[in-house]
Amino acid sequence: MLESTIDKFMEEREELNEIVMKYSGLNIKRFYNLDSRVYREGALSTKTKGLLGLVASLALRCDDCIKYHIIRCHEEGVTSEELEEALAIGLVVGGSTTIPHHRRAFQAWDELEETGES
Amino acid sequence: MLESTIDKFMEEREELNEIVMKYSGLNIKRFYNLDSRVYREGALSTKTKGLLGLVASLALRCDDCIKYHIIRCHEEGVTSEELEEALAIGLVVGGSTTIPHHRRAFQAWDELEETGES
Amino acid sequence: MLESTIDKFMEEREELNEIVMKYSGLNIKRFYNLDSRVYREGALSTKTKGLLGLVASLALRCDDCIKYHIIRCHEEGVTSEELEEALAIGLVVGGSTTIPHHRRAFQAWDELEETGES
Amino acid sequence: MLESTIDKFMEEREELNEIVMKYSGLNIKRFYNLDSRVYREGALSTKTKGLLGLVASLALRCDDCIKYHIIRCHEEGVTSEELEEALAIGLVVGGSTTIPHHRRAFQAWDELEETGES
Amino acid sequence: MLESTIDKFMEEREELNEIVMKYSGLNIKRFYNLDSRVYREGALSTKTKGLLGLVASLALRCDDCIKYHIIRCHEEGVTSEELEEALAIGLVVGGSTTIPHHRRAFQAWDELEETGES
Amino acid sequence: MLESTIDKFMEEREELNEIVMKYSGLNIKRFYNLDSRVYREGALSTKTKGLLGLVASLALRCDDCIKYHIIRCHEEGVTSEELEEALAIGLVVGGSTTIPHHRRAFQAWDELEETGES
Repeated sequence: MLESTIDKFMEEREELNEIVMKYSGLNIKRFYNLDSRVYREGALSTKTKGLLGLVASLALRCDDCIKYHIIRCHEEGVTSEELEEALAIGLVVGGSTTIPHHRRAFQAWDELEETGES
Repeated sequence: MLESTIDKFMEEREELNEIVMKYSGLNIKRFYNLDSRVYREGALSTKTKGLLGLVASLALRCDDCIKYHIIRCHEEGVTSEELEEALAIGLVVGGSTTIPHHRRAFQAWDELEETGES
Repeated sequence: MLESTIDKFMEEREELNEIVMKYSGLNIKRFYNLDSRVYREGALSTKTKGLLGLVASLALRCDDCIKYHIIRCHEEGVTSEELEEALAIGLVVGGSTTIPHHRRAFQAWDELEETGES
Repeated sequence: MLESTIDKFMEEREELNEIVMKYSGLNIKRFYNLDSRVYREGALSTKTKGLLGLVASLALRCDDCIKYHIIRCHEEGVTSEELEEALAIGLVVGGSTTIPHHRRAFQAWDELEETGES
Repeated sequence: MLESTIDKFMEEREELNEIVMKYSGLNIKRFYNLDSRVYREGALSTKTKGLLGLVASLALRCDDCIKYHIIRCHEEGVTSEELEEALAIGLVVGGSTTIPHHRRAFQAWDELEETGES
Repeated sequence: MLESTIDKFMEEREELNEIVMKYSGLNIKRFYNLDSRVYREGALSTKTKGLLGLVASLALRCDDCIKYHIIRCHEEGVTSEELEEALAIGLVVGGSTTIPHHRRAFQAWDELEETGES
């Protein structure tokens, strides 16, 4: 059976962020802040921005980034059909090397859909 | 003065596509077909899909892909504010190595805005 | 002791593919189909195509893709000498960042050679 | 009309290599040497190795590397059918971001085929 | 003869930055600001930071970024021997796909050395 | 609790290197040799070279490479302030997709600082 990837992911993220904060100076903190600001509601909705973050992360094949944006998209009310269309674009843009990441993206999405977590 | 990048781009693209078609078999043609299908209207609008293609292309730093999606976004009625927010996400996701591509993205956008081309 | 990477890999791949199929529409299915067609016998042999897929995957540092192509190359009768020469090209093209992937490639190859699996 | 890309490419390569040699020490020279050795005849033919170098370069979207390997493949007697199948694998592995590079690959190939250069 | 790459680069950069500023909002401006702050004197010298920026840019094969850091390294008093050692690391880490960028890096360095520009 | 990543990493590296050596020919061995030579004391110190290797590895998002260079930097006497500044450059150059790798870099550094290992 596949382990619960969402719970393990959130727990590890928490632990690692504490370590990062222990060492980070102003520039790294500013980057983290900016990384949160660009996804805020504006001319584009937070939902569209979540999908943009997801597809960019899939194109760059960053598993942790993908999982984070999958969770955010689920919270923003993205439907399974919308998610599938966004991931199809990421797949065509990034090619078959995105397939393993794309599998784990659907795995995380399925876990969220099945457990009703958001 | 900066040359008209849009016109030169479209002309070269045309010439090169003829050469590709001269040599391509069924699999390459199928890929090109799929590359067009994933951007069609569906659960997500063609406008949102254009932005997804743009940000994925910026993340992967593909100048020709960026220019193509900039032209498509302009045709789809994306506003300058929406474009700026999408490119800000691409910049934060992909880092400062996307800056040169991001400059050329705004250059192409500016040319389209100034000439009213779409 | 290193765990059996091939068995675990095949089992997880199976489970994840079921999840992907649950959500995928026509475009994603077409991509998967195309991803299988390009490796079929043609002007180039399936063996040469397996090596091409392997080296492209090593260059892009995609562990799951590498493992898949290592298994396919073994099935196609690639010898250890041929594999070493192909991986040397991938190493020089992609640089030292491919070394960790290249280690896991030889690990999977060694498992196949030792167990006689194909 | 598209300019002769092969001639310009070879001329610039020559000029730049002289500059590199003016500054390079032993390690860079060793790397260049190794970069030539991995493509030599061995368990795999120089033709297969040329195709491996080409597909790895397409996957990594390196135009100059692609052009170099296109010229080498032409010298090694690769046919247009073999080239098309190898580039189809590169396209599927690397996705639509490889399309601009793939266009320029066929452009260089076409120039070689038309002029009979090798 | 090879054109003066430094002058053309600086002129185009200037023109493009004006276009970027015309469209950019607060987040993009913050990123540009941060991109300048991380290279300032601190626990590491501006010279070491220039070399770090250069090698990261070579690894990611970003020509404009490389040229910018080559100019900065020259201003910071990096010697040709130091530059060669840093570029050798970038070459080994990033592999032969960095060679075309590495050639253009030495070309820009040579232009700076020959003209005494900084 | 997070497992000891350094110990597990060193042990697996050892086991995998034995497998690589079982299959590798002269070219792969030469590459490994060169990969060690470029970090030796020269015009630049081993400490600066360690930081260059680290930032290039972060830019290319190679976890094993990052961990290796974190261990080497710790041995070379890099301070936490110097490390933070180098990682801030890698973060800005490579963008938010480097964050998960950057978290694991600080985790490994923290383990080395806490246990006094080098």
